[in-house]
Amino acid sequence: MKLWKKNSELDPRVERFTVGNDFALDQRLVKYDCRASRAHAEMLTAIGVLGAGELEQLAAALLEIERLEAEGRFELTEDDEDCHTAIEGYLTEKLGDAGKRIHTARSRNDQVLTALRLYEKDALAEIGKAVAALGAAIGAARERFGAIEMPGYTHTRKAMPTTVGTWLGCFAAALEDDARELAHVTGRIDASPLGTAAGFGVPLLKVDREMTARALGFAGVIENPIYAQHGRGKLEAVILSTCGQILYDLNRLASDLLMFSIPEIGYVVLPESLCTGSSIMPQKRNPDVLELIRAKYHVVLAEELKVKSIASNLVSGYNRDLQLTKEPLFAGIDATAACLAAMEVVLEGIEIDPEACRAGLTEDLSATVRAYELVSQGVPFREAYRIVGKTTAYKSTVRGVPPGKP
Amino acid sequence: MKLWKKNSELDPRVERFTVGNDFALDQRLVKYDCRASRAHAEMLTAIGVLGAGELEQLAAALLEIERLEAEGRFELTEDDEDCHTAIEGYLTEKLGDAGKRIHTARSRNDQVLTALRLYEKDALAEIGKAVAALGAAIGAARERFGAIEMPGYTHTRKAMPTTVGTWLGCFAAALEDDARELAHVTGRIDASPLGTAAGFGVPLLKVDREMTARALGFAGVIENPIYAQHGRGKLEAVILSTCGQILYDLNRLASDLLMFSIPEIGYVVLPESLCTGSSIMPQKRNPDVLELIRAKYHVVLAEELKVKSIASNLVSGYNRDLQLTKEPLFAGIDATAACLAAMEVVLEGIEIDPEACRAGLTEDLSATVRAYELVSQGVPFREAYRIVGKTTAYKSTVRGVPPGKP
Amino acid sequence: MKLWKKNSELDPRVERFTVGNDFALDQRLVKYDCRASRAHAEMLTAIGVLGAGELEQLAAALLEIERLEAEGRFELTEDDEDCHTAIEGYLTEKLGDAGKRIHTARSRNDQVLTALRLYEKDALAEIGKAVAALGAAIGAARERFGAIEMPGYTHTRKAMPTTVGTWLGCFAAALEDDARELAHVTGRIDASPLGTAAGFGVPLLKVDREMTARALGFAGVIENPIYAQHGRGKLEAVILSTCGQILYDLNRLASDLLMFSIPEIGYVVLPESLCTGSSIMPQKRNPDVLELIRAKYHVVLAEELKVKSIASNLVSGYNRDLQLTKEPLFAGIDATAACLAAMEVVLEGIEIDPEACRAGLTEDLSATVRAYELVSQGVPFREAYRIVGKTTAYKSTVRGVPPGKP
Amino acid sequence: MKLWKKNSELDPRVERFTVGNDFALDQRLVKYDCRASRAHAEMLTAIGVLGAGELEQLAAALLEIERLEAEGRFELTEDDEDCHTAIEGYLTEKLGDAGKRIHTARSRNDQVLTALRLYEKDALAEIGKAVAALGAAIGAARERFGAIEMPGYTHTRKAMPTTVGTWLGCFAAALEDDARELAHVTGRIDASPLGTAAGFGVPLLKVDREMTARALGFAGVIENPIYAQHGRGKLEAVILSTCGQILYDLNRLASDLLMFSIPEIGYVVLPESLCTGSSIMPQKRNPDVLELIRAKYHVVLAEELKVKSIASNLVSGYNRDLQLTKEPLFAGIDATAACLAAMEVVLEGIEIDPEACRAGLTEDLSATVRAYELVSQGVPFREAYRIVGKTTAYKSTVRGVPPGKP
Repeated sequence: MKLWKKNSELDPRVERFTVGNDFALDQRLVKYDCRASRAHAEMLTAIGVLGAGELEQLAAALLEIERLEAEGRFELTEDDEDCHTAIEGYLTEKLGDAGKRIHTARSRNDQVLTALRLYEKDALAEIGKAVAALGAAIGAARERFGAIEMPGYTHTRKAMPTTVGTWLGCFAAALEDDARELAHVTGRIDASPLGTAAGFGVPLLKVDREMTARALGFAGVIENPIYAQHGRGKLEAVILSTCGQILYDLNRLASDLLMFSIPEIGYVVLPESLCTGSSIMPQKRNPDVLELIRAKYHVVLAEELKVKSIASNLVSGYNRDLQLTKEPLFAGIDATAACLAAMEVVLEGIEIDPEACRAGLTEDLSATVRAYELVSQGVPFREAYRIVGKTTAYKSTVRGVPPGKP
Repeated sequence: MKLWKKNSELDPRVERFTVGNDFALDQRLVKYDCRASRAHAEMLTAIGVLGAGELEQLAAALLEIERLEAEGRFELTEDDEDCHTAIEGYLTEKLGDAGKRIHTARSRNDQVLTALRLYEKDALAEIGKAVAALGAAIGAARERFGAIEMPGYTHTRKAMPTTVGTWLGCFAAALEDDARELAHVTGRIDASPLGTAAGFGVPLLKVDREMTARALGFAGVIENPIYAQHGRGKLEAVILSTCGQILYDLNRLASDLLMFSIPEIGYVVLPESLCTGSSIMPQKRNPDVLELIRAKYHVVLAEELKVKSIASNLVSGYNRDLQLTKEPLFAGIDATAACLAAMEVVLEGIEIDPEACRAGLTEDLSATVRAYELVSQGVPFREAYRIVGKTTAYKSTVRGVPPGKP
Repeated sequence: MKLWKKNSELDPRVERFTVGNDFALDQRLVKYDCRASRAHAEMLTAIGVLGAGELEQLAAALLEIERLEAEGRFELTEDDEDCHTAIEGYLTEKLGDAGKRIHTARSRNDQVLTALRLYEKDALAEIGKAVAALGAAIGAARERFGAIEMPGYTHTRKAMPTTVGTWLGCFAAALEDDARELAHVTGRIDASPLGTAAGFGVPLLKVDREMTARALGFAGVIENPIYAQHGRGKLEAVILSTCGQILYDLNRLASDLLMFSIPEIGYVVLPESLCTGSSIMPQKRNPDVLELIRAKYHVVLAEELKVKSIASNLVSGYNRDLQLTKEPLFAGIDATAACLAAMEVVLEGIEIDPEACRAGLTEDLSATVRAYELVSQGVPFREAYRIVGKTTAYKSTVRGVPPGKP
Repeated sequence: MKLWKKNSELDPRVERFTVGNDFALDQRLVKYDCRASRAHAEMLTAIGVLGAGELEQLAAALLEIERLEAEGRFELTEDDEDCHTAIEGYLTEKLGDAGKRIHTARSRNDQVLTALRLYEKDALAEIGKAVAALGAAIGAARERFGAIEMPGYTHTRKAMPTTVGTWLGCFAAALEDDARELAHVTGRIDASPLGTAAGFGVPLLKVDREMTARALGFAGVIENPIYAQHGRGKLEAVILSTCGQILYDLNRLASDLLMFSIPEIGYVVLPESLCTGSSIMPQKRNPDVLELIRAKYHVVLAEELKVKSIASNLVSGYNRDLQLTKEPLFAGIDATAACLAAMEVVLEGIEIDPEACRAGLTEDLSATVRAYELVSQGVPFREAYRIVGKTTAYKSTVRGVPPGKP
């Protein structure tokens, strides 16, 4: 039974199309809607809409749903439409009038917004932990290998000497920035939409929005009710953009690891525990894990675009288009968490081959030093550069042959 | 058991990450891999790798898998990695050496490419049927309402008179073009990759690629084996681009229907069978079905971008990144089919309100006609335009008030 | 003369292709590179690379370039390659050895990074001012019209009564958040890359990076030199993402204004000073300004995607691909500034038609209130909802006719 | 003077904002609008709107504009708004009434559509020639180096032996497909929109649309006038999608060339004529040309997205948003032409190092052959695979050391 069913029949084909897979996506929101509904019921009791007995019944039933869901026994089906319908339906069937009263002074829209923000806060905290764990794994790798000198690259060509510590330090610094961004974004979503209803508030009743905000751990409330709706889509995009920044760092790190572990270069060694094989070539050890981390950046980029594109050109107030921002949000969050965990495994497993690094530090990498030796003798830099440039033959370091010795 | 498992242990966390949800996605490819494997087995028999008895066994087992799958009894699990592994595993367990021989002269890569192309041909044919069905529904609506005059719009402002037939005829023409595109794209994928192996052919054996191509109904073979791999990603993008063109037409049609059915305009009437409600506002009848059709365009656009972005900057030959093009391909195809069907329901259900159309044809819409009346009296057009422009007060037709009567 | 020209000839077709329009884009960076070069020269003097006389000469010449550029007399040409080459060339030609020494202890890469960050800080400050100005214009409009009651919409259908003040207040709140984001992003770029050279530091010399950072007004330095390079692309994307958030708000506001100013609805009146015309239809007054603001959101979204897509799958260290992030950065910043200014003009010009708003508040909008009246009599909400729902005929408010009075 | 200026003043800030850089973009459309205007004038004469003398005057003046434009003496300025306004203005000033009559029976909208399609046909033909030229350069490279054996790669790891001819043949085949796509797309745009006016035809006059279509070399006319408008945006996207397919092939080829020319691998040698340098590192020879070709794929991808995103969620009929599809169209076409030409230079310049290729064919690449040797002795493939897999040590070929000899 839909919340909004009245006296007519919706075409079942339209019904299936509009529900889509929303019911399945909503599974992870059940517990958040239960918590928000409990806070809402307490507030309704405080303003006299519910009696103390009704509150007790509702709170108990909502806790029961949370428990059932955790045990996999509150599975949403296509007929449920979404978690909010399923929960209100359960309460009404079990408790009668108390269930029919729970929706007083709220709209499904602010239920969705509230449950999403509660979920997002949890999800961002989880991603924050995964960022820290990967940061620690990078730190451990720097401790093991940091002092080893290796060639630094620009334009996928050897450039100047650097160290493994400096190279990996780049990604450590990137993750520290990402952690700050996660905290910043968490701050942006930390305001309660509950009580804004469909964007136009609740008539007649005096809703205590601060009370529900406090009960749910929000830092404050969203004052303008239309602005609460306006955030749908915009905030999902912000979260995905932040996930995308993390995955960007992983994409670049994966690109480095993929190139530095090409056997022809070999600075990085991927143990067999990180490699998959080929169905036809018996000798292959493939870095699939790195390729998939690299590719997931593009997946999340597309999910971000999806949200940003869906939400545009819409008249203010809720539009059903926005339902389709839920799946990319979840997909982006899941991909980010999975890639962080996978990269942590990689960082724990890789080895650095000091001999390969040493062999990579061919003589041509010292050209800049030689120019600066001339500078320290008083030669203007640009002249020193030209002098060294002319004497540095265009000699590749193909297969380890030092320049000048073909 | 993975096809490529040798003597070492892949880290189970890496294994889970690399498999991802590929096994679930592969469910729809099982039947196509069975067909391709049958054709491949016949060819292996023809070139002497398999005996006639082995072929018989393999063909029977592959048909059995197809049947089981159709009945929902060949469900792939995470341990299967993908459908190709599951099928080879089933054959080997059931038939022993015959099963171990089925992978002779092929790579999992060309299995994937072949199964995908077979699937895509079927999927495009299905979409073609849905396009035709929607075209017919538009045709029927034009027959019912085509003669009704209505305002044409530019810049979301009334412009000149047109008819319902001309308006809907735009989308009929668009779908005809889309149908041609579907045929064109089908032609592009109609070449067999089977036998190109991992992009470098099969050593020692003389594979008869034309034989398998014929058996599978392909129009020809892809000659260059690396080019077979190169198509991965590129062709998925082409298919999604074509789906996107269809959804673009639906997006624009949905936008028209959404605006023309705003009660304040009311040319189009959406019956209650097409409308959903609100959880808080009892009077609401919402056009969710149209909003979701509109939004799905953006979903498919993002899936297209996902494929195009994943597949870039890669060295030639297969890269595991490309595995992630499968999900957006399926998502795009499914969304397109669902939207075409939903829009067909909408077209069957809508009514045109002739009175609203008539009331919409306010006097200001005749300004261009009046200019052309002056033209037919010999006034140069640009002068006629200025004369009429000056006398046409900037009078909106707010709430049906004709210009000049405020 | 290129900085890196040595003893060989680059193919002129390759030269033209690689330079592209970079020289033209660089015009706006000239002044920032002059400032950074001055700070750099002071530091080189402090560490003994330049003499006091050389510093004086360089500082004067750099100020001269800034002045010439401001007067349009330092126009970069294709032969200049970029602003850094042009400036060093000018200094060398004018000052000889002092000019040849200015590039000591730096790379063109950190010149680019430094000039960009200085530019970005200025540009973000300008956008911040434009956001504040638009916020003020919205505030003024709310003062003029805020108390007028109007219909609120969901699903592009009338929903519940709201006020012009609440509606516009949504966008005021959005811009306040945007201003906070601008400040946050400015903080992210407020660290000096100068002295990281090509990502591997400067050999032999002891560069005083804090000194140049202080002189240029940066809050600190980027410690890890590879991380300085890593920011290229990533920070441009962050800035464009922030611009995109602003344009998202304008896109939604433009969408509202476009719909609310349709004559059939007419809550908002666009004066002729905001409207353009048609070349064929004399009566047309078109809201092009709003359509272009709406469309620019998509432009900036695409520019953001461009940067994010270009910068992916690259090995760490500078890659020339990143040169192509400059144009989308500038395009996005310019579009944002232009749209903010245009929307300010719109907000100053629009009128609200109180009569149209009143006529729009049809009886059906009171359905929720009626439900809550029943609630206040003790009827459970869900029952009240059904009672009112059944008695609210599916009556549109076509052309201002109140429900029940056809 | 704007075509649509009547009795009121547009705010000059709105005017500048709406014109944007359209006048500059329109420079390349001047000649096409002249041609279309000539054909239109002939048709107007045939249906009696213009006299023979007027036609002669108009035709001469339009040829003069074409000539002036070719000589750089018909430069559009911001005041011109666009090329259509400038041309009509020129005709009116020069010819009086004949100029004021040229706009009879057309709208600026169909002028834009017609000029764009004429331009697009020319542009696609040019790109077609550049594709053929690059194909020829690849063919020449295959003739020089095709027989050389080299390692084939999957997962950026050596896989099986292939030849330079097979590798480059992949891209030859890709370009052949691209040429077919260009022809197909050209067919899609080969229909005349002229005479559909603003999407609602021309009142009173009997326009001979076949006549203008023939005169302009179109294969036919677009029947449905609203569909002519509907193509705006959709066809730009199709063209950009086709450009994107070409650039995708170049992106992948550039990625191969970048990796195969890393000195550590060295199969491909880039001569100094293709390499740029570093401002700080005297020894550097960088493959910027390949990096920029690689990056331009992303630029065009973003331009395609821009068009697709701008054009969505719009009510049918022209919307000013669509003006912003012009710049990405031109940008995408220019980038494609430039990259094809640059890649042709690269293909003419590269060398293959046969010794590096030979050294790259390390023993591990023969693992598949060894498995098939067992297969030819009757061992089932999967068993042969496992036998060879176990005996192929996970030995990289770091620095050319053959496996087993560390």
